[in-house]
Amino acid sequence: MTSNRRLKSYNMKEIKIGLLGCGQVGGGLIQLLKRQADFIRQRTGITLTIDRILVRDISKPRGVPGGLLTTNPDEVIYNLETDIIVELLGGLEPARRLILKSLSAGKHIITANKAVLAVHGEEIMRTAQENKRQVYYEASVCAGVPIIRSIKEGLLANRISSIQGILNGTTNYILTKMADDENKSFADALREAKESGFAEPDPTLDIEGIDTAHKLAVLSSLAFGIPSVFKSIYIEGITEITQEDIKNARDFGFLIKLVAIAKKLPDNWIELRVHPSMLPEKHPLTSVRNEFNAVLIHGDAVGEIMFYGKGAGPITTASALLSDIIELSTKISTHQLKMENLYWGKRRILPIEKTNVEYYIRFPIIDKPGVIGKITTILGKYNVSISGANAILVPGKKSQGYLPGSVYVITERTAEKRIRQALAQISKLPVMRDKPFMIRIEREY
Amino acid sequence: MTSNRRLKSYNMKEIKIGLLGCGQVGGGLIQLLKRQADFIRQRTGITLTIDRILVRDISKPRGVPGGLLTTNPDEVIYNLETDIIVELLGGLEPARRLILKSLSAGKHIITANKAVLAVHGEEIMRTAQENKRQVYYEASVCAGVPIIRSIKEGLLANRISSIQGILNGTTNYILTKMADDENKSFADALREAKESGFAEPDPTLDIEGIDTAHKLAVLSSLAFGIPSVFKSIYIEGITEITQEDIKNARDFGFLIKLVAIAKKLPDNWIELRVHPSMLPEKHPLTSVRNEFNAVLIHGDAVGEIMFYGKGAGPITTASALLSDIIELSTKISTHQLKMENLYWGKRRILPIEKTNVEYYIRFPIIDKPGVIGKITTILGKYNVSISGANAILVPGKKSQGYLPGSVYVITERTAEKRIRQALAQISKLPVMRDKPFMIRIEREY
Repeated sequence: MTSNRRLKSYNMKEIKIGLLGCGQVGGGLIQLLKRQADFIRQRTGITLTIDRILVRDISKPRGVPGGLLTTNPDEVIYNLETDIIVELLGGLEPARRLILKSLSAGKHIITANKAVLAVHGEEIMRTAQENKRQVYYEASVCAGVPIIRSIKEGLLANRISSIQGILNGTTNYILTKMADDENKSFADALREAKESGFAEPDPTLDIEGIDTAHKLAVLSSLAFGIPSVFKSIYIEGITEITQEDIKNARDFGFLIKLVAIAKKLPDNWIELRVHPSMLPEKHPLTSVRNEFNAVLIHGDAVGEIMFYGKGAGPITTASALLSDIIELSTKISTHQLKMENLYWGKRRILPIEKTNVEYYIRFPIIDKPGVIGKITTILGKYNVSISGANAILVPGKKSQGYLPGSVYVITERTAEKRIRQALAQISKLPVMRDKPFMIRIEREY
Repeated sequence: MTSNRRLKSYNMKEIKIGLLGCGQVGGGLIQLLKRQADFIRQRTGITLTIDRILVRDISKPRGVPGGLLTTNPDEVIYNLETDIIVELLGGLEPARRLILKSLSAGKHIITANKAVLAVHGEEIMRTAQENKRQVYYEASVCAGVPIIRSIKEGLLANRISSIQGILNGTTNYILTKMADDENKSFADALREAKESGFAEPDPTLDIEGIDTAHKLAVLSSLAFGIPSVFKSIYIEGITEITQEDIKNARDFGFLIKLVAIAKKLPDNWIELRVHPSMLPEKHPLTSVRNEFNAVLIHGDAVGEIMFYGKGAGPITTASALLSDIIELSTKISTHQLKMENLYWGKRRILPIEKTNVEYYIRFPIIDKPGVIGKITTILGKYNVSISGANAILVPGKKSQGYLPGSVYVITERTAEKRIRQALAQISKLPVMRDKPFMIRIEREY
C-alpha cells in the first residue's frame, strides 16, 4: 500500500529520518540512535540515519554533522531521501502546519506532541489517511511506556470501558512531596520540583491540568475510537490543594492524585475529566509516586490492567520515538503499511454537572456557633447526604470576634449539579471566610 | 513473504482458525470471538471464523456447530481453509509434536502454552523460521497484559538489563492471604485459594515455582535474545514459607513475594532465578496483591517500567489470544509477514552459588544457652556479616530439656556459596531442631 509516486527502492533497509526541532528530546533521540544503532541493525536488519534537522540556531553544537542542520523547514519536509519525519517542536503552531505539510509531501510522521494531537488530531489523522501516510505517537503519552501500542494492538480484542491515569510527572511529584511531608505547602513542593528538574520554569500547563488533559484526549480518542475531544474535557489543576486537604484525605483513608478519567456510561455517554481525586488507599494508582506516571485501563475481556513508568525525560521519550521509528521503518521496508479505521466509536460527552460520585468538601469558616448547622441545612436542602465529617480550628486572626476554622465533609454519591448549587448558596453565608473547595472521590477501578 | 505454495486469495479478509484443544481457555476464546466479532470487523475489516476444533470428547456441548469438532488432530492441521492454528492443549506432549506438524503444514501458530515454549521453544521457533511461519504467544505470560508485544516492539529501542516479575496468580494469592492474616498458615491459604478457584486441584506446578519459571524462560528468551534457558533457571517454591517468616519480613520492613528474576551482569553473565524474595516496602511489586501479576522491566532508555494485570482466567487469556489472532490476520491479509532475527544475544547463566544479595535466615533452634554464639561464630567463619537479628521462643515441646525457639538473621550482601557453606555447617549443630531456611532479599529495581 505504499505510494508508488516515488522511485526509491526500499530493499536497502536503510531508513532516513528528518527531524523538525532539536531540543532536549531531539538531543536524546540523536544520542540514543547513536548508542543503539548496531543493536537495532542486529535485531531488525535496518540502518537508521538522520538526514536533515530543523533547528532555530544552526551554530549550537548538537553532536551531528553541521551539514544536517537547517533553519528552513522545507529542506526537511521536501528532502527526497527521507521517509519519516519526527516532529519535536511541541505546541500547536507551527507544529500543526508542518505536520500537515509533511504528510502532504508523502512523509510519515512520528510525534511526541500531545498538544497538537489533542487539539488538531482529527485534521492530522484525516490528512494522513488522504495521503496514505501513518502518524505514530507512542511518545506523546507516558514517554517510553508502550501504552499507545498496547491499546492499539494488545487490547484490540477489548471494549475499553474506562481509563484512569496519572499522566503528568510534575503534578504527581508535587503531590507526593506534599503527602510525604506535612510541612510542605504546594508552593514549597513546586519550588522543590523546579529545583529537581521535575517542573519547568513556567509550570502552568502542568499544574493547571492542561498537559494531563492533552494526554487524556489522545488516549480516549484511541481507546474509544472517537475524534479528539480535548475541548470537552473538564479540567481542574492542583494549585488549590492544601496540606489541610492532604491530611484530611489521609484521615478519611484516601490519597490525593491528579487523575485523568475517561469512562463509558450507558447510551454512549462518555465522562472525561481531569481533576484532583481522592483515591482509596488500595486503589492501584496510589502506589504511583514522585515523577512516575501510570495508566489503569478496564477492558471487558482483560479486566483491570495497569502500565507504569517514567512519563518524561529526553531518553525515555526517545525510547518511544525510536520504537515508533523502528516499527514504521520495518513496515516501510517490507511494504506493510495499512490504513486503519480511525473513528468507529460514538460519543456524547457527559457535562461535568452530571458527574455522580462522592465528594470531599472543605468549608473555610469562622467558628461562630451554629455554623455547622447552617452548612448541613443547605446541603440537606439539595439532598446531599453526609457520610463523614470533621471540623477544626486553623491558625489565623480572629474575624468578627471568632477564630478561623474549617469544616470537612465527605458526601455520599451525589449528582454534581446539586453539590454545585449547595456550595454556591453556602458561599454566601456570612460565616464563610473563603469559598468552599471540593475534591471528587474515585472509589471504582 | 507469505508462501505461494497455496492458491487461496487473502483479499476476502476472512480468516479461518483451527483450535487444538478446547478446555476453559478455548471456551473463553469461542465466547469472546462471538461477543466481539462485529466490533473487530468494524475496527479491522477482518472476519474471524473458527473452522475446526480438536477435542477429546466430541459429545460435550461447546456452543459451536458439532460439525466443527474432531478427535483427529490431522483434520485441524491439514484443513486447507485455515491459516492459523491456536494451540490450547497445554503441557509438553502432544502439544510440541502438533505445533511442529502445524508449522510444517504451513500454518501459523498462536499459543498460550508457556511450558512447551520454555522447554521446546528453540525447536519450535527454528521450525517456524524454516517454514516461514509465525509463532505468537502473548497469552503465555500474564494472560491479557500485552507484555510480549511490549518487549518485542515497544521496548525495541532498549537493551533490557533486568526483569522482575510476579508471574503466578496462585502463589501471589496465597502469599497475600498469609500476609493479610497472621493466623493463616500456608496450608490454610492454599485451601482458600482452591476454594476461591485461584489454585488448581493439583497446584504443584504453581506452588513449586515451575509455572513461574516457564514464564521467566519465555520472557528472558525474548528480552535477552537467547534461546529458552528453562533448564538453567534456579527454582524454589513457596511451600516452606511460614507465618514466622511473613511476620519477620514485616518487622524488618519487607514483604515476601514469589519473584522471577532475570538480570544481566557484566561479561554476558545472566542471573535467572525463581524463589521467594523479600522486597522492601517501596518496591513497586509489593503493591501487586491477590491473583494479580506484574512485570517490572529495566531498559537502558526507558528506565523502570511495570505492567500489571490479572495473570489468568479464560476470558483474559482469550483477550491475549484474540489480539494475536487479529494482528496475525491483519498481517496475513495484507501480506505483511516478516521473519525476525530470533537469537541475537549472548548468554552465560550464573550458577546460583554466585548470586550476591542480602539474606534472611531463619534458624529453628532449641533455646540452649550459647546457641546464638554458635550460629554467629560459624557465619563469621564464612565471612557472612549480620546487619539485623532477632530471636524468639516458639510454641512447642521441650527438647533435651530446652524450649524450642527461632533465631532470625539478616545478612549483608554475601556470595551465596558462603551462605550455603555456613548453613550446611550450622545444620549439624545439636542445638538445631530443623534445618535453617533462607530467603533472598531483592532491594534493587
